[in-house]
Amino acid sequence: MPTAPTRILFIGDLVGGLGRRTLLGLLPGLRAAHAPTFVVVNGENVAGGLGITPKIADELFAAGVDVITLGNHTYHRREIYPYLDDHDAILRPANYLATQPGHGHCVVERDGVRLGVVNLSGNVFLRAGRPAFTEVDSILGRLEGKADLVLVDIHAEATSEKVALGWYLDGEVTAVVGTHTHVPTADLRVLPKGTAYITDVGMTGPRGGVIGVKKEQAIESLRTMMNVRFDTSEEDPWLMGVLVTADPDRPGRALSIEQLLVPWDGTAPAAD
Amino acid sequence: MPTAPTRILFIGDLVGGLGRRTLLGLLPGLRAAHAPTFVVVNGENVAGGLGITPKIADELFAAGVDVITLGNHTYHRREIYPYLDDHDAILRPANYLATQPGHGHCVVERDGVRLGVVNLSGNVFLRAGRPAFTEVDSILGRLEGKADLVLVDIHAEATSEKVALGWYLDGEVTAVVGTHTHVPTADLRVLPKGTAYITDVGMTGPRGGVIGVKKEQAIESLRTMMNVRFDTSEEDPWLMGVLVTADPDRPGRALSIEQLLVPWDGTAPAAD
Amino acid sequence: MPTAPTRILFIGDLVGGLGRRTLLGLLPGLRAAHAPTFVVVNGENVAGGLGITPKIADELFAAGVDVITLGNHTYHRREIYPYLDDHDAILRPANYLATQPGHGHCVVERDGVRLGVVNLSGNVFLRAGRPAFTEVDSILGRLEGKADLVLVDIHAEATSEKVALGWYLDGEVTAVVGTHTHVPTADLRVLPKGTAYITDVGMTGPRGGVIGVKKEQAIESLRTMMNVRFDTSEEDPWLMGVLVTADPDRPGRALSIEQLLVPWDGTAPAAD
Amino acid sequence: MPTAPTRILFIGDLVGGLGRRTLLGLLPGLRAAHAPTFVVVNGENVAGGLGITPKIADELFAAGVDVITLGNHTYHRREIYPYLDDHDAILRPANYLATQPGHGHCVVERDGVRLGVVNLSGNVFLRAGRPAFTEVDSILGRLEGKADLVLVDIHAEATSEKVALGWYLDGEVTAVVGTHTHVPTADLRVLPKGTAYITDVGMTGPRGGVIGVKKEQAIESLRTMMNVRFDTSEEDPWLMGVLVTADPDRPGRALSIEQLLVPWDGTAPAAD
Ligand SMILES: [Fe+2]
Ligand SMILES: [Fe+2]
Ligand SMILES: [Fe+2]
Ligand SMILES: [Fe+2]
Ligand SMILES: [Fe+2]
Ligand SMILES: [Fe+2]
Ligand SMILES: [Fe+2]
Ligand SMILES: [Fe+2]
Repeated sequence: MPTAPTRILFIGDLVGGLGRRTLLGLLPGLRAAHAPTFVVVNGENVAGGLGITPKIADELFAAGVDVITLGNHTYHRREIYPYLDDHDAILRPANYLATQPGHGHCVVERDGVRLGVVNLSGNVFLRAGRPAFTEVDSILGRLEGKADLVLVDIHAEATSEKVALGWYLDGEVTAVVGTHTHVPTADLRVLPKGTAYITDVGMTGPRGGVIGVKKEQAIESLRTMMNVRFDTSEEDPWLMGVLVTADPDRPGRALSIEQLLVPWDGTAPAAD
Repeated sequence: MPTAPTRILFIGDLVGGLGRRTLLGLLPGLRAAHAPTFVVVNGENVAGGLGITPKIADELFAAGVDVITLGNHTYHRREIYPYLDDHDAILRPANYLATQPGHGHCVVERDGVRLGVVNLSGNVFLRAGRPAFTEVDSILGRLEGKADLVLVDIHAEATSEKVALGWYLDGEVTAVVGTHTHVPTADLRVLPKGTAYITDVGMTGPRGGVIGVKKEQAIESLRTMMNVRFDTSEEDPWLMGVLVTADPDRPGRALSIEQLLVPWDGTAPAAD
Repeated sequence: MPTAPTRILFIGDLVGGLGRRTLLGLLPGLRAAHAPTFVVVNGENVAGGLGITPKIADELFAAGVDVITLGNHTYHRREIYPYLDDHDAILRPANYLATQPGHGHCVVERDGVRLGVVNLSGNVFLRAGRPAFTEVDSILGRLEGKADLVLVDIHAEATSEKVALGWYLDGEVTAVVGTHTHVPTADLRVLPKGTAYITDVGMTGPRGGVIGVKKEQAIESLRTMMNVRFDTSEEDPWLMGVLVTADPDRPGRALSIEQLLVPWDGTAPAAD
Repeated sequence: MPTAPTRILFIGDLVGGLGRRTLLGLLPGLRAAHAPTFVVVNGENVAGGLGITPKIADELFAAGVDVITLGNHTYHRREIYPYLDDHDAILRPANYLATQPGHGHCVVERDGVRLGVVNLSGNVFLRAGRPAFTEVDSILGRLEGKADLVLVDIHAEATSEKVALGWYLDGEVTAVVGTHTHVPTADLRVLPKGTAYITDVGMTGPRGGVIGVKKEQAIESLRTMMNVRFDTSEEDPWLMGVLVTADPDRPGRALSIEQLLVPWDGTAPAAD
């Protein structure tokens, strides 16, 4: 049994090489400051803005990331398909079809604590083979007795789906954290029955763009309604995440959720 | 010329009778604490969750609201149509068709300061007759020389549209504030050229529901995929807004933007 | 074994009371002319344009309709929910959730021939809990050995989904007939492996409206972008359907598919 | 004044090289059989399934096509942008933004008859800067006195928009023909006030695919919900179009509309 409370650091969608470098640059300092037991990262935009590659996933795991979650851009890169099947700790939404590469939940263990992570996709404005709300019931059933804490990443556009899922799982899991919009929300809190909740964690990468894209290109696209090439912005890198602290007195529940919005000055950490 | 800096209090979508009462209950205290020159309120959900009526609009104006903005639920109540045409200070999105009731911008004056307010609808996932980005150019042209400060309420679902509009108008207006998702975002700041920005201000009303709806009903709807009657939640009222302070040294620009997330204890203010 | 070839008369979405009367008025003549073994009718719009009631379903069955299929308007009327569970021969899309009222396939028998009917919903632009393409595999497995002929009603908006389903099931079922757009298509044919196909059968009801709605109201809605009340048109009733003839030499396959586009003069049939 | 009635041959979306070859292969025979005064072709999918190039447009005009209309794939190929501005007789939807390349209507003259052609995009499920219904009013105003006949190509997904536009323009133009779904409809007729109408003309190209795409790829995409590469099918080429005959007794109105669904045997016409 751990003497310090268990902490989960969850970091929002890494966008492009800048997002990856921002994470790698800031993670040692965040570890020193917050001593997270687990680090979970959404990586659906890390490969040039769309998808993820085996090389990048390996790099993230090597940097100490425990679990990578994904979202609607999961399958942008074909080379990740077998990797998704072969590696337990990288997840695509659980409510995708069983025949799609990969799987949607896993359990990782650190310091004698077992963390279950579940990745879900919203069904409004997004394409997922099964409904999130019924799928999560089934997965929580399968996780029963196998995880001490459970974190759910709900990757969705509509605030209604995310807020409702938070209420639905209040008291059932340790945390429900939203991703996908790339904008952090100001509604984080521990819900009445002990589940930490936030509608969107935000993204990690160029805050100086438009949810990751060069701002000039995003504006031109919206102004002209023409096809515009989108590149990843390189301006103003920030890491956006939350730190969830487990409640030592209530198994599987959260004591607190704190928001981490951290600019990166571009300095890589000293080699350890 | 005002001696104190001009402040604009903008308050997110009032939801139902509880949203209205929360505003009326908290406004005197907010006035006392922040001395806003102008109060602007989004009222698209104030009549039972959908739309607004003349009676409620009158009540809001009587309480000292300077401008009411609206959104996709503008036309839910037929009795508001002539009111929208007859009253300058209630706005529906400017990029709706010219033939639709009402208008999309106005100028109000307090203490010798003229505030232009523009209401826009996003075009992604929402139905608006004209594109927001070209419409706003035309309206800002018409406001030139007629307003000292300009606030834009961009009522939209997609974060990309709102963030891009903020960048597009940076240096052109005093503030770009987003509405519609009913969840406040944690990205408020003054952009480099002096425009205050936030992706979503949030809502004013029952935080204990799902973006305004009773949480049990919202969950049932998502779990069962059946038609479920939606009622306005009555749980846990909060006011959500932002306070924009004009920059005394840079005409038309913002000095700061602060977030107001205020629970209401249900006490009506003492009669003044 | 039947001496005459088995024929299935499939009739597109009945719209409103006029659609119901058109069917009842024309069915005796169609029976006389074509001697269909089975009559299958899509009834998702028969109750005032939206949904169906037990009373109307009873009336259709009493008139000799063998199976009623439905679609996205299935659950508009609450009173039909228990009826959907209690009656085998009224179907809602099979790829809705198992928890939703009703079921998605049935087998009916006439003259010693067993007809399986499957109702599916498209997944593009429409909300269905499961994908049509995987669901249909599972249902055809369950029907194996239990039906001599199988007809699939794919209720969908996108032509791509419907055409693809026709190709996918070619050689597997007797007929794939599309519904939902209310406009009959001119692409009916027997596909190479023996499955009769049409992208959309059309509707039965007021051809003088806009897919069932009074044309003045539909035009006003599109021109003004305002909320307009929709009533069912009463102009120019037509019955739209197809007649599928089973191939006596190839079990479960179709010999032909013919289009029936029949105006109704408003005369009820003489009592039999 | 022409002695024979004026006829307009309108041909639905050419899909890929096969679509182009099918048109070129069949056009001489269609000219011989029907003596159309004007030939109008939708070319939005002619360049490998998406868009059009200057070279192909030149080839179509050289083959005697009078006007090319387009749709949602107009801007897929960048090299067409200046061509759209420089050539009167190639149209993109008129209700796109004025700043987008090209224009949405033109007048061509043959045998002393002036044909106005208008290209519109639907607003439901498709992205167009302005509403079709108000735009068409403005264009018909500009065409007044400048065209003897007017044909409108409404490129749209939803049947409601197309049927409503037909009714809206009945008596105002010679023909309203729908495109985009790639499936021909069986509802063609001359409406009561003299406007020829069809909801969709269909496509010209591989009927053996799924609205133009190889059927195996389309099925795989829908079954697996994975990203699947789409190639243009090469199976079973057909030309789909309509022949509208002007009414010699009612200026600007139609006498008849006939459907042309013609398989192509792959034989190029003898050189003339
Ligand atoms: Fe993302
Ligand atoms: Fe995403
Ligand atoms: Fe709202
Ligand atoms: Fe809204
Ligand atoms: Fe229907
Ligand atoms: Fe339908
Ligand atoms: Fe097309
Ligand atoms: Fe198209």
